[in-house]
Amino acid sequence: MRRSKAFIPTLKEVPADAQVASHQLLLRAGFVRQLGAGIYSYLPLTLRALRKVEQVIREEMAAIGAQEFYFPALHPAEPWQESGRWEVMGPNMFRLKDRKGGDYCLGMTHEEIFTTIARAELRSYRNLPQVWYQIQTKFRDEARPKSGLLRVRQFTMKDAYSFDIDAAGLDRSFDDQRRAYHRIFSRCGLSFVAVEAHSGSMGGSASTEFMVRTNAGEDNIASCAACGYAANTEKATSRIASADDGPGLAAPEKFPTPGVRTIEDLGKPPYGVTADRQLKTLVYIADGKPVIAVVRGDQQLNEAKLQSATAADDLRPAHPEEIRTLLGALPGSLGGVGTAGRAPLFLDPSLVGRRDMVTGANQDDHHLRGVDVARDLAHAQPIDLRTVNDGEGCPRCDGVLSVYKGLEVGHIFKLGTRYAVAMKATVLNAAGEVVPVVMGSYGIGVERVMAAAIELHHDADGICWPMSIAPFHVALLSLQTTDAAVVKAADDLYAALESAGIEVLYDDREERPGVKFKDADLIGLPIRLAIGTKGLANQQVEVKLRTSKEVQLVPLAEAVQYVKDLIRDLTPKAIEPAS
Amino acid sequence: MRRSKAFIPTLKEVPADAQVASHQLLLRAGFVRQLGAGIYSYLPLTLRALRKVEQVIREEMAAIGAQEFYFPALHPAEPWQESGRWEVMGPNMFRLKDRKGGDYCLGMTHEEIFTTIARAELRSYRNLPQVWYQIQTKFRDEARPKSGLLRVRQFTMKDAYSFDIDAAGLDRSFDDQRRAYHRIFSRCGLSFVAVEAHSGSMGGSASTEFMVRTNAGEDNIASCAACGYAANTEKATSRIASADDGPGLAAPEKFPTPGVRTIEDLGKPPYGVTADRQLKTLVYIADGKPVIAVVRGDQQLNEAKLQSATAADDLRPAHPEEIRTLLGALPGSLGGVGTAGRAPLFLDPSLVGRRDMVTGANQDDHHLRGVDVARDLAHAQPIDLRTVNDGEGCPRCDGVLSVYKGLEVGHIFKLGTRYAVAMKATVLNAAGEVVPVVMGSYGIGVERVMAAAIELHHDADGICWPMSIAPFHVALLSLQTTDAAVVKAADDLYAALESAGIEVLYDDREERPGVKFKDADLIGLPIRLAIGTKGLANQQVEVKLRTSKEVQLVPLAEAVQYVKDLIRDLTPKAIEPAS
Repeated sequence: MRRSKAFIPTLKEVPADAQVASHQLLLRAGFVRQLGAGIYSYLPLTLRALRKVEQVIREEMAAIGAQEFYFPALHPAEPWQESGRWEVMGPNMFRLKDRKGGDYCLGMTHEEIFTTIARAELRSYRNLPQVWYQIQTKFRDEARPKSGLLRVRQFTMKDAYSFDIDAAGLDRSFDDQRRAYHRIFSRCGLSFVAVEAHSGSMGGSASTEFMVRTNAGEDNIASCAACGYAANTEKATSRIASADDGPGLAAPEKFPTPGVRTIEDLGKPPYGVTADRQLKTLVYIADGKPVIAVVRGDQQLNEAKLQSATAADDLRPAHPEEIRTLLGALPGSLGGVGTAGRAPLFLDPSLVGRRDMVTGANQDDHHLRGVDVARDLAHAQPIDLRTVNDGEGCPRCDGVLSVYKGLEVGHIFKLGTRYAVAMKATVLNAAGEVVPVVMGSYGIGVERVMAAAIELHHDADGICWPMSIAPFHVALLSLQTTDAAVVKAADDLYAALESAGIEVLYDDREERPGVKFKDADLIGLPIRLAIGTKGLANQQVEVKLRTSKEVQLVPLAEAVQYVKDLIRDLTPKAIEPAS
Repeated sequence: MRRSKAFIPTLKEVPADAQVASHQLLLRAGFVRQLGAGIYSYLPLTLRALRKVEQVIREEMAAIGAQEFYFPALHPAEPWQESGRWEVMGPNMFRLKDRKGGDYCLGMTHEEIFTTIARAELRSYRNLPQVWYQIQTKFRDEARPKSGLLRVRQFTMKDAYSFDIDAAGLDRSFDDQRRAYHRIFSRCGLSFVAVEAHSGSMGGSASTEFMVRTNAGEDNIASCAACGYAANTEKATSRIASADDGPGLAAPEKFPTPGVRTIEDLGKPPYGVTADRQLKTLVYIADGKPVIAVVRGDQQLNEAKLQSATAADDLRPAHPEEIRTLLGALPGSLGGVGTAGRAPLFLDPSLVGRRDMVTGANQDDHHLRGVDVARDLAHAQPIDLRTVNDGEGCPRCDGVLSVYKGLEVGHIFKLGTRYAVAMKATVLNAAGEVVPVVMGSYGIGVERVMAAAIELHHDADGICWPMSIAPFHVALLSLQTTDAAVVKAADDLYAALESAGIEVLYDDREERPGVKFKDADLIGLPIRLAIGTKGLANQQVEVKLRTSKEVQLVPLAEAVQYVKDLIRDLTPKAIEPAS
């Protein structure tokens, strides 16, 4: 494409409201414009990059026998009501009414809709397995859209769904997708880690997230370099250090703590109770019913873990009045002692067996000391609740966990029979019995892959596209548009490259070389070719990779083959997972 | 693709609620399933066909220098409010609120949204012309979704927009698109006619529709075989036959017509006034204000023409009480005589100069006779209002018009400066003046192209796909799956065809040949290859075209080349317009 005809509105200034690199660069390099909060218009360069990501996805989906569908974005409420998610999705789901007053929503995901086809058309184990996917537009009414294309309200997703006769089949389908995801992300130039994850509103028994390590991400990953353990901190746990508590008291003893409201308050004189000897007690409302959660004073409760523990669709912190009704005190003086029968109590396993601990007395401005967890919280259910911190021990080996920010680019779920049972998607098994189909669900955020590639591959001057998803392979610059020989040589090379199937953005504008070099760096195509008066005297073209400072002089006659070889060599290869 | 792995749920019965051929066949051949009224899930075969239509569109858009964008489907209300179409679109637009209560809609079309980019980024005539397009999902809350994919509430559209500095530029951009449309539709195997059309809510000065002649269509086309004149009846006119009226009366004369309500009533004894001597008077409300329309008793008023005449965004028949307030009588006794100053009166030109006519007296149960249009309706504005009928004279030549049903597959508009002025999209012209950009808008219904191809190309057994948009080129049937030699030969041919880049649906199922032949006819791929014990004895494969009864026996060794040649020969060629 000739740059003089191309619509690429580059900006000199960094837009004020753009924080992360991909957001800044997508705006500056003329890839996107914002239409509304979390709603972006994709200009031609973005479309070219997205199309390449999609092509990689299609190839890898075809390789595992997945068939491409295309389902509507506008959904009648009924399938969502059948699965129960019409309620669960809450304000994240865009809802609307049609002219007759019927209830509709915009699809956030398509488990329900794919299941409507599966239940109508699949009859027998002979029809299984089926692996279906689409690359399609999703809508989510994010509370806080931000970071350019990283957190938006409309985006493109590859979502796949597998239908198997049993759990063993699901394991195979899940593993096919997992391996395909490794190939897809590596081919798109992403370095990433596959981590154990929380399944959230999706439900199901297990899920794996694919995370790119970048501070632009909003998730936290705990991983162990020694054994390869990696998990989202919503799911990650750590080795529990043994504690050497004293014998404590024969029974908990109440003491007055006027004005004490926080763990920190109780650590100060005259009390001096270190955070690791305190029990932190929190009350949540899980699907309308109160639950009590207890972690150590120096730990943070992880809400995702509490949600898993309660199996609740909806979980929120209790309001003060709800807490007082339940425990008779306000936050700051809460404790689990004596609460048996009032609400389920979940306790982090790091507290099992601890003695001589301090907690609130469920009386404002009073605490208890000498608490023995086994004796005084015998009704507690130990379940992992705490958020793992950097430097804690790996739960699988002697290593140490490091915690870092990650950006989710894919998430795969073993759904099991949750949707099939709710929506009556059954088939006959080999024994002639009616059984629910066993499902999996597998998502990739297409724009996120593109934006993650920019987060990983950029420098102060602009984007450095991986070859596989670059909008064009080559930036061809003609440096002197007033020199007819230069123009002719550049025109000829442009034609020769295009005939060879190489995608070229040809900067034929009447601009100074400096402007063209700057623009080329900003847009970030992997290979830059420059034809100028000087090189042309020797029938040479300057070749420079975006990621290198080095300039090669290549004979014009050899340029096409030279570029072809570079494209081949620079295209990221598919990497299979180790296991 | 192996049929045994493919999800193609064919049906034996014709679905009861499907009327038109494309709807029946898309359901029966396993292409689509309905999710809700006017909302369809596309199964894999549909996706393959749609992708091919899109590819033809992309190639022809690229050939005229159009750049591909991708804009959101979810739109903030503001741009629509700026253009005034937030109101105009009425109940056809899906509207919703986000979690903060902000107003949004689902895009029915994208003039406003493309204009937001144009006004922000285009500064000067030097940036023009620009031709931008997308292939994207549109939403329209149709009052009566029907006919499968022909009238739906969610669909895919190629919409292009041109931005020029002046009307001459728009003429060129419009002509580029018009020619591209001829190539696109002909390449997709459609026979069609380009007709003059009404611009409707799009506004602008001129528009051309691309119509496929089929009874499944909902438009009416009037065309002249002699001179090539063709227009939607919303726009078409006809030659006016001269009338030889008598001198009439010196003034209109009132006479009682008790119980007469219709043109037909007045034609009966004792009145005996033939319909072609009556003036039919109708009252409409145009943007809130009444207008009177008068056509001949035997003519039908065309509302689209009246809307153009009034330049109203919203037009509806007046209610009886509104009519009585305006004219003092109820429908059945209305007339234009003596209405000057009460409301604009539009009169079909076929009535100009007529004398001795009969019309309502604006007094219930009374009419006037002896009406002289020039004398008694001097305040009328003559403007084309009538619907053209089959057999009327061509307005351009001595020929005769035929009127037939048409299905709109594309529509191109000269918008002019309507949106640019409303939304302040201005640029500097060569003289340094600030001028609004001059726009055009160009749409193709992608699913409609596919469904129109089925309407044109099918028989009693199923679809007969044009090669260019067929989901696969070839149906390969192995006739005896218990004969190892047949299976091997079919497997080998399948592999050889695929290696040659030929798209094959390989029916490897354990089914009787009759089932496979029936399914192949239903799905309708252009070339059928069948390998069976008999042919294999001579190392031959049966080749049959879907549109022919003839079977060729081709040596297996030559089959790939034979099929390649067939594909080339059967692919519809691009046809340029005559002018």
